[in-house]
Amino acid sequence: MREVFQQEMREVQDRLVEIAGLVAESIDKATRAFNESDVTLAEEVIADDPRIDHATITLDELAITILARQQPVARDLRIVVSALRISASLERMGDIARHIAQLARYRFPDKVVPKSLRGTFAEMGRLDVEIAQRLVELLTTEDVKLAEYIRDEDDKVDALHLQVFDKVLGETWKGEASDTVDATLASRYHERFADHAVSIAKKVLYLATGDWAPDDA
Amino acid sequence: MREVFQQEMREVQDRLVEIAGLVAESIDKATRAFNESDVTLAEEVIADDPRIDHATITLDELAITILARQQPVARDLRIVVSALRISASLERMGDIARHIAQLARYRFPDKVVPKSLRGTFAEMGRLDVEIAQRLVELLTTEDVKLAEYIRDEDDKVDALHLQVFDKVLGETWKGEASDTVDATLASRYHERFADHAVSIAKKVLYLATGDWAPDDA
Repeated sequence: MREVFQQEMREVQDRLVEIAGLVAESIDKATRAFNESDVTLAEEVIADDPRIDHATITLDELAITILARQQPVARDLRIVVSALRISASLERMGDIARHIAQLARYRFPDKVVPKSLRGTFAEMGRLDVEIAQRLVELLTTEDVKLAEYIRDEDDKVDALHLQVFDKVLGETWKGEASDTVDATLASRYHERFADHAVSIAKKVLYLATGDWAPDDA
Repeated sequence: MREVFQQEMREVQDRLVEIAGLVAESIDKATRAFNESDVTLAEEVIADDPRIDHATITLDELAITILARQQPVARDLRIVVSALRISASLERMGDIARHIAQLARYRFPDKVVPKSLRGTFAEMGRLDVEIAQRLVELLTTEDVKLAEYIRDEDDKVDALHLQVFDKVLGETWKGEASDTVDATLASRYHERFADHAVSIAKKVLYLATGDWAPDDA
């Protein structure tokens, strides 16, 4: 029974890695669409989001089937519950990538944010993409160091998020109200994306170390 | 076994109702703090959020214990999984109430939004509070009509969310960048709060058809 469980959980893990890969691809395209006003890429991200949604629903069904058939207890049970939670966070990360792409599409052919903020958003986007790519690795290898790395990168995203507000609320800000709205929303999306990654990293840490992390993201 | 399961699931339901009650109280205080610049109320919401977090963690532990001890299958299993998901959404709604309170505290003694938007936010806040209160009733009674009602109220919140952007991006908007940032964030929080309620309502709809309601109630 335990062996079947292990086998089925490998299947769950493979699918989590696959979905995280789709999310990494989406955030990469979304941030490029955002920074380079590439409406084709934006459309791709928006069109692909249902694939991520569908993949998470399929994964959830598999996890529920494992619960029903294998009746796991103790640590095994918590692993399956963690997988369901990781799936929910990945689904939200896909939504956020879509939101970023929608901002890009909405402003096309203009850029979403004025010149003075482009460097900040380029860096935030780069960090989100890197975080998503490390998340794929983390789900594959369960290397604890990657979880720490993701947390550190999230701190950098948070700092940039504050920087956006400093610029928008600073004396030199010349943006119109629409620039301010876009910058506010975009910054919040970038920040939330990284938050979800940290929340997943905590759960993977649990899977690797046995330290149960409550859902506090 | 089934009887024990029913009993334990009543306990889960009671706790969901209790947490939804805490969330309703929080959003009521948070929106009053926001609309009336009441920093004492804002502080209360911020201080109370860990209670909601703690209550959801305790509930999750109970649900996981039920999974381990009762080994539910089929519909029963889906009911427990739904409870875990509802718990996660309630936890997020508590976070959002805290975010709204934090905006109020940050701007105190000023109001968060300029005069021209106060009516819109008062109405959004009223809807969010009503949605949270209906959610408590829905979790208590599983009355399908309440789920529909919540969905309709969410449509109204979405319309007001768009109205905020129309005003902020309109010709008559005289707000400073900080007003624009605050209005954008606040509107997004109000809208997400209602979204989570709809997501819960959908799950309760399932629970209602999942034979969760005790026969003797």
